[in-house]
Amino acid sequence: MAIVLGPNQYGKAENRVVRITRDSARHEIRDLNVSTALRGDFSAAHLVGDQSQVLPTDTQKQTAYSYAKEKGVESIEAYGLELARHFVDDVVPVEGARIEIEEYAWEHAIVDGEEHEHTFVRLGQEVRTASITVEGKGAEQKTWVIGGLKDLVLLKSTGSEFHGFLTDEYTRLEPTTDRVMATALVAQWRFTETELDWNAVYAGVKRILIKQFAVLHSLALQQTLYEMGKAVLEEYPFIAEIKFSAPNKHHFLYNLETFGVENNNEVFHADDRPYGLIQATVMRDDAPDAGPAWTPAANLA
Amino acid sequence: MAIVLGPNQYGKAENRVVRITRDSARHEIRDLNVSTALRGDFSAAHLVGDQSQVLPTDTQKQTAYSYAKEKGVESIEAYGLELARHFVDDVVPVEGARIEIEEYAWEHAIVDGEEHEHTFVRLGQEVRTASITVEGKGAEQKTWVIGGLKDLVLLKSTGSEFHGFLTDEYTRLEPTTDRVMATALVAQWRFTETELDWNAVYAGVKRILIKQFAVLHSLALQQTLYEMGKAVLEEYPFIAEIKFSAPNKHHFLYNLETFGVENNNEVFHADDRPYGLIQATVMRDDAPDAGPAWTPAANLA
Amino acid sequence: MAIVLGPNQYGKAENRVVRITRDSARHEIRDLNVSTALRGDFSAAHLVGDQSQVLPTDTQKQTAYSYAKEKGVESIEAYGLELARHFVDDVVPVEGARIEIEEYAWEHAIVDGEEHEHTFVRLGQEVRTASITVEGKGAEQKTWVIGGLKDLVLLKSTGSEFHGFLTDEYTRLEPTTDRVMATALVAQWRFTETELDWNAVYAGVKRILIKQFAVLHSLALQQTLYEMGKAVLEEYPFIAEIKFSAPNKHHFLYNLETFGVENNNEVFHADDRPYGLIQATVMRDDAPDAGPAWTPAANLA
Amino acid sequence: MAIVLGPNQYGKAENRVVRITRDSARHEIRDLNVSTALRGDFSAAHLVGDQSQVLPTDTQKQTAYSYAKEKGVESIEAYGLELARHFVDDVVPVEGARIEIEEYAWEHAIVDGEEHEHTFVRLGQEVRTASITVEGKGAEQKTWVIGGLKDLVLLKSTGSEFHGFLTDEYTRLEPTTDRVMATALVAQWRFTETELDWNAVYAGVKRILIKQFAVLHSLALQQTLYEMGKAVLEEYPFIAEIKFSAPNKHHFLYNLETFGVENNNEVFHADDRPYGLIQATVMRDDAPDAGPAWTPAANLA
Repeated sequence: MAIVLGPNQYGKAENRVVRITRDSARHEIRDLNVSTALRGDFSAAHLVGDQSQVLPTDTQKQTAYSYAKEKGVESIEAYGLELARHFVDDVVPVEGARIEIEEYAWEHAIVDGEEHEHTFVRLGQEVRTASITVEGKGAEQKTWVIGGLKDLVLLKSTGSEFHGFLTDEYTRLEPTTDRVMATALVAQWRFTETELDWNAVYAGVKRILIKQFAVLHSLALQQTLYEMGKAVLEEYPFIAEIKFSAPNKHHFLYNLETFGVENNNEVFHADDRPYGLIQATVMRDDAPDAGPAWTPAANLA
Repeated sequence: MAIVLGPNQYGKAENRVVRITRDSARHEIRDLNVSTALRGDFSAAHLVGDQSQVLPTDTQKQTAYSYAKEKGVESIEAYGLELARHFVDDVVPVEGARIEIEEYAWEHAIVDGEEHEHTFVRLGQEVRTASITVEGKGAEQKTWVIGGLKDLVLLKSTGSEFHGFLTDEYTRLEPTTDRVMATALVAQWRFTETELDWNAVYAGVKRILIKQFAVLHSLALQQTLYEMGKAVLEEYPFIAEIKFSAPNKHHFLYNLETFGVENNNEVFHADDRPYGLIQATVMRDDAPDAGPAWTPAANLA
Repeated sequence: MAIVLGPNQYGKAENRVVRITRDSARHEIRDLNVSTALRGDFSAAHLVGDQSQVLPTDTQKQTAYSYAKEKGVESIEAYGLELARHFVDDVVPVEGARIEIEEYAWEHAIVDGEEHEHTFVRLGQEVRTASITVEGKGAEQKTWVIGGLKDLVLLKSTGSEFHGFLTDEYTRLEPTTDRVMATALVAQWRFTETELDWNAVYAGVKRILIKQFAVLHSLALQQTLYEMGKAVLEEYPFIAEIKFSAPNKHHFLYNLETFGVENNNEVFHADDRPYGLIQATVMRDDAPDAGPAWTPAANLA
Repeated sequence: MAIVLGPNQYGKAENRVVRITRDSARHEIRDLNVSTALRGDFSAAHLVGDQSQVLPTDTQKQTAYSYAKEKGVESIEAYGLELARHFVDDVVPVEGARIEIEEYAWEHAIVDGEEHEHTFVRLGQEVRTASITVEGKGAEQKTWVIGGLKDLVLLKSTGSEFHGFLTDEYTRLEPTTDRVMATALVAQWRFTETELDWNAVYAGVKRILIKQFAVLHSLALQQTLYEMGKAVLEEYPFIAEIKFSAPNKHHFLYNLETFGVENNNEVFHADDRPYGLIQATVMRDDAPDAGPAWTPAANLA
């Protein structure tokens, strides 16, 4: 029996890269939070403190900012691919790279009914995400791209039921045929291609997710998630699987009866904790191997 | 010399009241965070633990939820006025009430180009705020209403300068004629009337603030705030003053020259802390007395 | 009627200054979050963008870091006084300065039962605070010092009652003679002197607050706060007043009876929101004028 | 090619269970945040909204609170094992359960030098964690227990170097032989036994981690983590592996030279973002299979 070094990675987390495009009078903005993680044989650094195979996290940061100009940020997926490939291709000890990016959306400010050319208002809604993994050098190189979003807060004020559930001696929940259903959706979808119109696909997936949440008369949040995922996969053949993490943000009907006030699903208390948490994957049965696609840049929190 | 009880107040903070209007197939939603604070002579509770003059914070909570149905939530200002007047008018020991409300905006989900009737997406942008103070009973009663917003994140990618400033031996800042200017705006405006189309005014103030931020070629964030406030007061005669708190969210130009990469105000690091903080009031010189209008429900944090 | 500039101030918020003392093998650490705000006639900056009277917030930052070495950080009160006096005394247009500081406590790591000389563990408990205001130049200069703490989380598992309260038609709360009482205390105390052993006083006030919370059999959180404040004022003649903001962090007794399980004040749900919020001032009846002592560096949030 | 349901789980997250032991005059408190997740064949709920195999998340919550009394909370590991085994053993469709618990530490308040019997101060330092996984019924059942902590903030003011690293064209970092090293440690260790004195082991692991952080003259955070893990494994034969996630919380030496002020590693700026992030596993080479031990209750964030 010996004590050994197991899986490890290191990088620079949360580089707040802002890229302004100002080639014309109308500017555009990309507002990113970029995390990098490198994988390879860094055992000398762990075992004896020898850094000769370690590209500093500061260098990873410098590269992330410089690439925002050198390669541009047409989309977070494309920019992330450039960064990941650079680290694996150009840094000898690096055998794999993981790039995770969050993007905060802005829109042009409206002034007298027109979009202002260089003033922006942050939208503040969902955060767009991407996770790029590149492994191996040369002809053996493999690439995985995951697109996603988080904090997309959705609510249906009717059209949602919950009943017929399993019960045991601790069950006190009353079944209902009309409840508020709300979630702050996290969704991530794995691509099988690396050359796509990433921005168009993102807009399309978001549109489909919202539509399915709306139109499905829901018997469970599980069912809603499944239909959302199925619709995305039906639309985009180059998406192999989609994963959801959906808190059931409870809106409890407030008891107004005690005051002689009718409450016909009109007044609710939005509770913080605890919350239900539903997680599901919808996938193609012939989805190619996910490999390290789902292994995050930070594997403990 | 004696030790005495000084200013005090108590209430229920952060009631998460959600009000759905479902009188027709098209639902509407008001998503509120309501805090109440009562003022009066509660010295017996402090000095000897006698609660006979203390309406429990739990009762204040019950009232906030019930009023969301009994009085409705046409606007947070109107709903807050109902709550504040109730506590002062109907609870004998209460001599003053302060109601503070945050509202989170939602929009109807778009499905196939149409607004869905009962599905909503949280906008996530700025938070609308209102602070209502009522003092005194009967004919002596006085009322103050403050509208506002917070977390409206604005950015100009050009059209902002900063130079000609005072210097001393600790000054190292370089003057600039072209910088990114960004803020997460907090604004609060004090009304001199209590019967208004609150929602229309809110939309108007927000529109004006954004416009002035955009169109003023700025020599300082101070100047921008002043012009924003001035434009609001010029438009609405029933607004006596407007206060701003504006963090200068620094976007530092990233040094790419060292890599031989030109950076013509295109790549920035968005820094977290520290940040400049500019606060200013723009007011009419004949503004009526603010009284307790600016005394918050929570006076320490 | 004219539109005019009202009260205003500006500064650099949240400078994260860390000061290590390493004059001997045993190091010490002061971990600060420093905010500065300057007051005076800055109307030219607001009205026409003229910065000639504006010392940049960047300069304020540089000064805060440099003073951590030049003047040292024996206590946050003493360091804050140095900074405030410098801005008012040495910068011509500055008529008043407000310095607000948070301090995060660390202790020496324990290794084999001994304190390690240069390794520290952050305590993570309450945050110590100080707010210093200096106004006027030369002989006219006035100074106010406020000490404080926040996020001191206290809980009593018995020894707390709540009954005999005022009721109305919305009251449903049941009186109780034994409840959990918990709070995350904010306290700020105003000094009448500026030359004190600040660190010793801080330790003493904290000790007294905790003791009174513990030993008073409480009939209301209001009563507990009053006794805490009274004891502090009785101990320290140079403290004129103390203000509290105390959320009543509700611990709701969980209904286990439905499962045939006895719950004799043993299992609770710690709820997040809403929460009661009690605020009170305990003061000497001959306390000198507070002037701007309580006017914060950020007056809107 | 068909679209199918992939991996899924559901549960109740963040139940804020507080357990007071009051069997004698001296009370004790356990303050927990409990998340449950159930695994099994719930495809009917996803595919057609049939809940007949779904034990509601509300029932999971009720059970968590009731078990705090029925089984007690001697340690979070023992309590989590009770909950996990209950769901798998007693609920027919449940094939696996994952329980994740955070514990917030309190200590008895000190009054006149003595511990007060029923008043507590929250420590606020690190959060203790546990993750329990049970899979399979009857004789086939397997169990994994992970202990851990997070947010243990450590700092060395000397005794840390970083040099000799790999460089490329983006490297601008200067090597150093004396820097501040600080982290907010996350550590999780996997047990190979399920009957242990969990509280004693927790205290021991924490003690060892702090000691190794202190005594190792560090050439890299990687090296420090490895030595910390190695020492834990050497002490406890029933720990198979330990994983670390350690942000390198940068403390940048502040340039005071420009003011003619010497800064001999005495004044630093504590920066927020970006930060280095080092992750490493230290394990026995004969560690038994981890199975689902590291699969969290929430697999996307």
